[in-house]
Amino acid sequence: MQKYKLTIEYNGAAYSGWQVQLNSYVTIQGKLEEAARKIFKQDIKLLGSGRTDAGVHAAGQIAHCRIDTPYSNDKIKNAFNGNLPDDIVVLKVEKVKDSFHAQYSAKGKTYRYQIINRADRPALLRNFCLHYPYKLNMPLMRKEAKVLVGRHDFKSFACVDSSDKDKDTVRTIKRLVIRKSGELITIEIEANGFLYKMVRNIVSTLLKVGSGKLEKGSVKRILAQKSRLGAVEPVQPYGLTLLKVRY
Amino acid sequence: MQKYKLTIEYNGAAYSGWQVQLNSYVTIQGKLEEAARKIFKQDIKLLGSGRTDAGVHAAGQIAHCRIDTPYSNDKIKNAFNGNLPDDIVVLKVEKVKDSFHAQYSAKGKTYRYQIINRADRPALLRNFCLHYPYKLNMPLMRKEAKVLVGRHDFKSFACVDSSDKDKDTVRTIKRLVIRKSGELITIEIEANGFLYKMVRNIVSTLLKVGSGKLEKGSVKRILAQKSRLGAVEPVQPYGLTLLKVRY
Repeated sequence: MQKYKLTIEYNGAAYSGWQVQLNSYVTIQGKLEEAARKIFKQDIKLLGSGRTDAGVHAAGQIAHCRIDTPYSNDKIKNAFNGNLPDDIVVLKVEKVKDSFHAQYSAKGKTYRYQIINRADRPALLRNFCLHYPYKLNMPLMRKEAKVLVGRHDFKSFACVDSSDKDKDTVRTIKRLVIRKSGELITIEIEANGFLYKMVRNIVSTLLKVGSGKLEKGSVKRILAQKSRLGAVEPVQPYGLTLLKVRY
Repeated sequence: MQKYKLTIEYNGAAYSGWQVQLNSYVTIQGKLEEAARKIFKQDIKLLGSGRTDAGVHAAGQIAHCRIDTPYSNDKIKNAFNGNLPDDIVVLKVEKVKDSFHAQYSAKGKTYRYQIINRADRPALLRNFCLHYPYKLNMPLMRKEAKVLVGRHDFKSFACVDSSDKDKDTVRTIKRLVIRKSGELITIEIEANGFLYKMVRNIVSTLLKVGSGKLEKGSVKRILAQKSRLGAVEPVQPYGLTLLKVRY
């Protein structure tokens, strides 16, 4: 059985996230495995670089799987795309060594979070952004965000009810860029790995500081407390896109 | 009765275009008039700056209507937004003189057309772009596009079966910009007015020249022939967004 690496793009708006669940929810992984069953007449198990939550998108999610097939990489890709719904597409199929693991071999990931900052709710980009109506101090947000870059214990930005999942909460943020173009604010974060809900907790904190709901210096203070107690709630998933996984 | 000018943003993916039709199709204008009936208990007729086709989006469509109400502009806006579906939003409500006409007072419009230029179909942006898989010569497209800028008879780029609608086919294109950012190509056109399907016919022609399906010089030749005979078919509507109407 050959091991394959798949690069996948999807619009997560219609799905209950990446990962197959023990119920009838419709997931991205589920749709890919369904397509694989049709094409290869085998039960093929995909393993993603990490799960993405309901509503989260991906421009470059990575998964691995084992397939017994004489098809070329391109033929496998086209077969998947002919059997997937419009909002999921396989962009690349590569043969990899058996030691490759979509999750454990990953050396880093890049996420993007989009915000529409205006009084009125967004219609055009409604599935791709958070609506944040409060005035934001962009220079302050950029300044506060700087303390997050580097190697830190991000326990304060972990998911409040997932302490069992993330035992080691130290991660390294290599890059955190906040851009503003008209009403659209984009926060791009690259790290060696992310705790569950870490991006959405960071974005939520930065927005609260930028709008004055949290006082100056709060990002530094929250990071230092290394506890989810008193930390903010995560922003909604629709603004989030997994851009890239690095190996 | 006070006359109002409305600025409207919408995702056209789920609609049969802007204009109310003599059947049960769901349209943007229809949804706005339905909301107005609920709010003001009056039959309110909206008139747009122009119709947009099924699947076409708008960031700044303009419409006018007459309403008899004591509400402030902002209250009218919020009442509309509370009664409209998620993919339509009113961004601005302004009182205008009775002489204002959304269609006839318009001095110019800007449209944007988006294309994903890669082998595989787009999943993330599938409702916002055309999928064009062929290799494109961008410098050639930009060069060919230049002959369109200025005052010309655009009869060759009119809708093939709408000669009755567009008797005067002379328009002035003030700006035509082609941008490429990775796989995303954006063509933005500003003109004093557009013939029906003109943007989609121009984009279609430029793509055919850029991919070598039409020979060099074709844009100039097609413009000069002033006839729809032998001109290309329009590209699909999903990539098109009405950005702005100027008065």
